[in-house]
Amino acid sequence: MTKATAADQPRRRRGEYAKSEATRAAILDAALGVFAESGYRAGSLREIAQRVGMSEAGLLHHFKSKSELLMAVLDRRDEHAFEITRFNEVDGIERLRGLVHLASYNASEPGVVELYCTLSAEATSPAHPAHDYFLRRYEWTRREVTSSFEAVAADGRLSAAITPRAAAIATISLMDGLQVQWLLDRSVVDMAEELARYFRSIVLGFDLESLEAALDEKVVAE
Amino acid sequence: MTKATAADQPRRRRGEYAKSEATRAAILDAALGVFAESGYRAGSLREIAQRVGMSEAGLLHHFKSKSELLMAVLDRRDEHAFEITRFNEVDGIERLRGLVHLASYNASEPGVVELYCTLSAEATSPAHPAHDYFLRRYEWTRREVTSSFEAVAADGRLSAAITPRAAAIATISLMDGLQVQWLLDRSVVDMAEELARYFRSIVLGFDLESLEAALDEKVVAE
Repeated sequence: MTKATAADQPRRRRGEYAKSEATRAAILDAALGVFAESGYRAGSLREIAQRVGMSEAGLLHHFKSKSELLMAVLDRRDEHAFEITRFNEVDGIERLRGLVHLASYNASEPGVVELYCTLSAEATSPAHPAHDYFLRRYEWTRREVTSSFEAVAADGRLSAAITPRAAAIATISLMDGLQVQWLLDRSVVDMAEELARYFRSIVLGFDLESLEAALDEKVVAE
Repeated sequence: MTKATAADQPRRRRGEYAKSEATRAAILDAALGVFAESGYRAGSLREIAQRVGMSEAGLLHHFKSKSELLMAVLDRRDEHAFEITRFNEVDGIERLRGLVHLASYNASEPGVVELYCTLSAEATSPAHPAHDYFLRRYEWTRREVTSSFEAVAADGRLSAAITPRAAAIATISLMDGLQVQWLLDRSVVDMAEELARYFRSIVLGFDLESLEAALDEKVVAE
């Protein structure tokens, strides 16, 4: 009896764990949608709970607060973006290609673009729960993109008219700003094309091929 | 008696009008502050009314609705920005200098930058009351900045690597995106400097002198 219970217990726990993970994932998807449409401040837990067909109390069983839920949404998206840009695996030009690829991928996920566009603006206010997150995120991104341009400069391929750090600040600004115009009217702006155009204007012989080829290979291999 | 009343009436009306205008201006300032800090959706009429020391009903006597108030705030800021860039008076390079001047002026008005940053992001949603306003505003701005670059190109001073329209889209994106990084940490980014740097990278012999000299003269003359 005791033995059987001991053997059953982990199995049941695993089943519960998997179910709980699926529920968490569904809540995160719904939260992304609500925060993207209404922003964090105006987006309500009630609306998120409704979309997954549970009560607000039920939702708070999985995430302790609205701000904890927001951070979980952002963390999950960051993991995803990290996979796409492959910032750890590649260097210099390849990293810049990764950013173009990310811009192109973002165009297939308008909800995610809306989320970052609205939240990064809201979170410039020091009282916002994601303020520190965005502060750290921009610092990290500036550092990483600067080091990419440093590698490009070391290869003698960065325009002498710009420093790696200024190029990084402009790149990040451009990506953020393009999102606003694209969200307002998607027929006006191709985010990836405009970013690639900027890279071509400051990086000697910039082209997109290599990362795309690598990604194609990866898709074939999978 | 009748004469005296007739003579008094307009004077009293003018006094009332001036008082009403001053109240409207105070409400618009308070609304700008609240919308900049909390966004339009989460910013409340009650908070705005409190800041000018009146009731919500009193405020609605001056502006019929929250969305009417928002549009009045935006219209007033646009008039102001228009004076600074002097888009009607000057052409080509001078207009680009006007944009750098606007970026520099914006840095002295963080509340206004916050307002546009938050509202333009919120308003990408078609249900937002300022959606059409921002759609038209970006169309207008793209058209005007494109025509500035066309004038620069006609003088043979635009880099062959970029079209006037692509340069306009990048310029507007850069200005918007720089605001986010600047609002998060003002020590990191000089918005006017980064914009001028971008213009120097695509416009042959771009410098800032002329408009500044003109503005200095204007200040001296006043």
